[in-house]
Amino acid sequence: MPTYFAPVKDQQFILHDVLKLSTSNIPGYSDLDQEVTGAILEESGKLACEVMAPLNMIGDTEGCHLENGVVRTPTGFKEAFEQFKAGGWAGIDMPEKYGGQYMPAVLASAVNEHFLASNQSFSMFHGLTHGAASAILTHGTEDQKDMYLPKMASCNWTGTMNLTEPQCGTDLGLMRTKAEPNKDGTFSITGQKIFISAGEHDMAENIIHLVLAKIPGGPDGIKGVSLFIVPKFMVKADGALGDRNSLSCGAIEHKMGIHGNPTCVMNYDGATGFLLGKAHKGMRAMFTMMNEARLGVGMQGLGQASIAYQNAAIYAKDRLQGRDVTGTKNPDGPADPLIVHPDIRRSLMDQKSFVEGARALVLWGSTWIDQAHRENDADADGIISLITPVIKGFLTDQGYAMTIQAQQIYGGHGYIEEWGMSQFTRDARIAMIYEGANGVQALDLVGRKLGHNAGQHAMAFFDLVKTFCKENADIEGMDAFVTPLKKASKDLQAAAMYFMQSGMKNPNDALAGSNDFMHMFGHVCLGLMWAKMAKAALFALDNKATDTEFYLTKLTTGRYYMARQLPATGLHLQRITSGSDTVMGLEASAF
Amino acid sequence: MPTYFAPVKDQQFILHDVLKLSTSNIPGYSDLDQEVTGAILEESGKLACEVMAPLNMIGDTEGCHLENGVVRTPTGFKEAFEQFKAGGWAGIDMPEKYGGQYMPAVLASAVNEHFLASNQSFSMFHGLTHGAASAILTHGTEDQKDMYLPKMASCNWTGTMNLTEPQCGTDLGLMRTKAEPNKDGTFSITGQKIFISAGEHDMAENIIHLVLAKIPGGPDGIKGVSLFIVPKFMVKADGALGDRNSLSCGAIEHKMGIHGNPTCVMNYDGATGFLLGKAHKGMRAMFTMMNEARLGVGMQGLGQASIAYQNAAIYAKDRLQGRDVTGTKNPDGPADPLIVHPDIRRSLMDQKSFVEGARALVLWGSTWIDQAHRENDADADGIISLITPVIKGFLTDQGYAMTIQAQQIYGGHGYIEEWGMSQFTRDARIAMIYEGANGVQALDLVGRKLGHNAGQHAMAFFDLVKTFCKENADIEGMDAFVTPLKKASKDLQAAAMYFMQSGMKNPNDALAGSNDFMHMFGHVCLGLMWAKMAKAALFALDNKATDTEFYLTKLTTGRYYMARQLPATGLHLQRITSGSDTVMGLEASAF
Repeated sequence: MPTYFAPVKDQQFILHDVLKLSTSNIPGYSDLDQEVTGAILEESGKLACEVMAPLNMIGDTEGCHLENGVVRTPTGFKEAFEQFKAGGWAGIDMPEKYGGQYMPAVLASAVNEHFLASNQSFSMFHGLTHGAASAILTHGTEDQKDMYLPKMASCNWTGTMNLTEPQCGTDLGLMRTKAEPNKDGTFSITGQKIFISAGEHDMAENIIHLVLAKIPGGPDGIKGVSLFIVPKFMVKADGALGDRNSLSCGAIEHKMGIHGNPTCVMNYDGATGFLLGKAHKGMRAMFTMMNEARLGVGMQGLGQASIAYQNAAIYAKDRLQGRDVTGTKNPDGPADPLIVHPDIRRSLMDQKSFVEGARALVLWGSTWIDQAHRENDADADGIISLITPVIKGFLTDQGYAMTIQAQQIYGGHGYIEEWGMSQFTRDARIAMIYEGANGVQALDLVGRKLGHNAGQHAMAFFDLVKTFCKENADIEGMDAFVTPLKKASKDLQAAAMYFMQSGMKNPNDALAGSNDFMHMFGHVCLGLMWAKMAKAALFALDNKATDTEFYLTKLTTGRYYMARQLPATGLHLQRITSGSDTVMGLEASAF
Repeated sequence: MPTYFAPVKDQQFILHDVLKLSTSNIPGYSDLDQEVTGAILEESGKLACEVMAPLNMIGDTEGCHLENGVVRTPTGFKEAFEQFKAGGWAGIDMPEKYGGQYMPAVLASAVNEHFLASNQSFSMFHGLTHGAASAILTHGTEDQKDMYLPKMASCNWTGTMNLTEPQCGTDLGLMRTKAEPNKDGTFSITGQKIFISAGEHDMAENIIHLVLAKIPGGPDGIKGVSLFIVPKFMVKADGALGDRNSLSCGAIEHKMGIHGNPTCVMNYDGATGFLLGKAHKGMRAMFTMMNEARLGVGMQGLGQASIAYQNAAIYAKDRLQGRDVTGTKNPDGPADPLIVHPDIRRSLMDQKSFVEGARALVLWGSTWIDQAHRENDADADGIISLITPVIKGFLTDQGYAMTIQAQQIYGGHGYIEEWGMSQFTRDARIAMIYEGANGVQALDLVGRKLGHNAGQHAMAFFDLVKTFCKENADIEGMDAFVTPLKKASKDLQAAAMYFMQSGMKNPNDALAGSNDFMHMFGHVCLGLMWAKMAKAALFALDNKATDTEFYLTKLTTGRYYMARQLPATGLHLQRITSGSDTVMGLEASAF
């Protein structure tokens, strides 16, 4: 069975050596010194390693079962959820008013990496609850907030998001679920929703469904969609639970992975719903939830890659097979460990340099969220909006590729379920699909975010890279980072320029390159992260006497990324500038 | 449920327009005119589409079950196997003396693509039988051949290959299974073998296990390994079945995919075995089987990508979601089909250009096999030896990536087992692992094949590309193919040159680039195939009045490959020439 180690040391390096939290001006950051974040991360790591990780394979093997309308979760999930709740983890960044601790997003993200890596299916229960609570926090009335948030911030009640219907996935304008107004101001919700994670289960007293539906007579298509709070059990004025609402789980799906979380078909049969936010403005409210969810899903790519890498590294050091071509390393054993072989190293370095770079990107991205939310900073909001599809799409595509590489190190054993590597890949696979398939992320990036406000946020991002390069080019040892980063950023800007020029004439020229652009953007982000980490490591080596091994390892890992991964931007640019002629050249009938 | 269409038209194009079989001098090819190959491929396609494909999901869902030492295969497999046998497919390229039809490998490969694509688990039963029969054909005594081959060429008896043990996978020198000589010239085989596909099942009267074992007192390590024929039931002199041999299936594995084929733990408890080939020369005999198996596994990458692509294309034309940004294409419907979206097209073109290129590569490679075997041509054998690890490693890595892309087109439905796309990816995953994990293929390519006979075969391959480019550069329309192919081939040669120069000083410099080299070699092979197909298509357009649509589609698909896929060689070269410093820079403890 696989194991998990919480990467607290690496996270501490990013939080303090790189991001320098406690000297930041962002409100709340000054409390986050080494000791505080260390203590919290040790605790969340303990819960992840000791409670959640051991349940991961059980969740996969047992799965969830629907019996008489009730979904039974895997053995141990309910007890683990109680421990999770008791630790106060659910409300870590929720307002204190609702029972939370109002910690910054940067810390919540670091904590969540532990949970997502150790047990993705389990983490989805509270992850979606958090997303639903955020939507209520942002768009709800004071009464709604008071009624739902204390229970959701503690995960006594869980939450869901209901978008998809059989005929409508990405294109929510095709929605059929109806919300008929009642005389008392409530709505009667009728329709079927599919792919509802944790839509029904036995781990919470109540489930608060956020449901997109159309109020009859409203605008056509996506502009006529509204968002509703539809509780499983009605909530009385005093907060006690009342009657069961008219909704039920019709079936749960048989999936490739995330078996520990029930993916439900939800039937709403005149269920009572409460409008959340404004009528016909449901998409705006839902996007609060979706943007948060997209970052969370990006972290799933990181999480699965991280645990898969950890286990692959252990296996590579343990499994004896073949001899080092440059000379025997384990003369007393029958063979050398796998890790002596250069292609095994290459694979482990791919994984390690991705995982550590992605970890930095998520935490760096979270500082922009904090800056945006706590300082009401529109520019910061612009940056995080821009890179949200990159974090979601790139980290899940690459995260998946890395779990596959980790599985590959196990040879035949990687294919056998008992070893657990197959589950990591099967679980990681969904992250490329849900919360907007990665093709939709690429479309969002190129079609919407890139040109938003006349390209202002993209320009700000390019400037940020440029400024970093300029300011740090002369530091000894930084050339190996700054030079390739400059080159990669130039490729990215050239692609953006190509989109502007060609995309004006033919939008297909831009959209045919959207997937490549998302990936090259991701590489530039990770290149920037590695340059920032290298700078911090060089500084530490110059100024600290201890732990030089850690910082030297950082530098080598970073140089690997710059030499072997970052140059992918050149290939992506070449593909992009080949335009859409060959992409769109065939009639549909030719496929 | 997914469907399958046998790509007979495309295969006919490759066999006749590109490879021009019936005018070839290779013995047996002159019989293979359009009509003959068309009739055979229609028949195998029919069996694949109507019998094997419908069983694919049943095999996945039901799996195999071990009860009291007997393995029960999924519903319908046994009946389908009878149909397969009755059609004479098992012995299609076996000598007539043993009941086969002695058709060339090129035709057998075309036929096998149908079987592998439609049901990989099912095809493994006869695929491994064929491999075992080939080993007996090449290394067996006349008596052994007479005893086993007629039954194996008909698949009345199936075969297996037994290499792996719990402590020994790639490194067969670690083998512990023993073969004690008996007085009568037989051997008593004792040991445990794992990952034995079709090691036990209910579909054949007898199972002929080929087992690697060590004769005590022989040389240490890999040089002391011998190969044995170990039948499940002893065979009497008259061919009748005798006593059950002392071997049994101890367990079957729970795997990520290929559930329809039992992966067995085989226990040999003093089982009677017969030496196949010479004592201590077992690896040579096993390699006959493994090289054949590696091509077959490469074809599995093609096969799964092919069926996954076919279904993704259907879905993309059927599923309505969103609108074409350049103008509505389906004004009467609620939305346009997915296929209008450029990123969906990009994905379908990736898949289509890979599948058709890989199909050509397998068939082209098969002509080298025929040339080598039927003309006893050492140069041809050198070429096919060189590209065997490329076909295995590149086609399965890329084939897997393409099944993942096909699954992605289905959005959330791709993750739901009922749609069948998950199975294609789970089944395709094993092909990257078994018959030598792809890292081992890359090592074989760079560490052995590339420099074999002072690099003679590699030089021959490069010359072959160069000659093609030179001879066809001036044909109108060929520039879009010849120019990128030349560039890619130059990259490949530069990498080989780097390996020669740096690898001499430090072998890790070569081996750290082995995976990249295998991939760039694969791209050059597919680039060559697309250039050859383009030439044939241009010729046909100049000389035939009919079916211009087919040939124009070929040209566009080929141009896509040249513009969007082939340039990957540049990135691979860049990675390779970064050397091994960053790859090997860390201590094992740093992982």
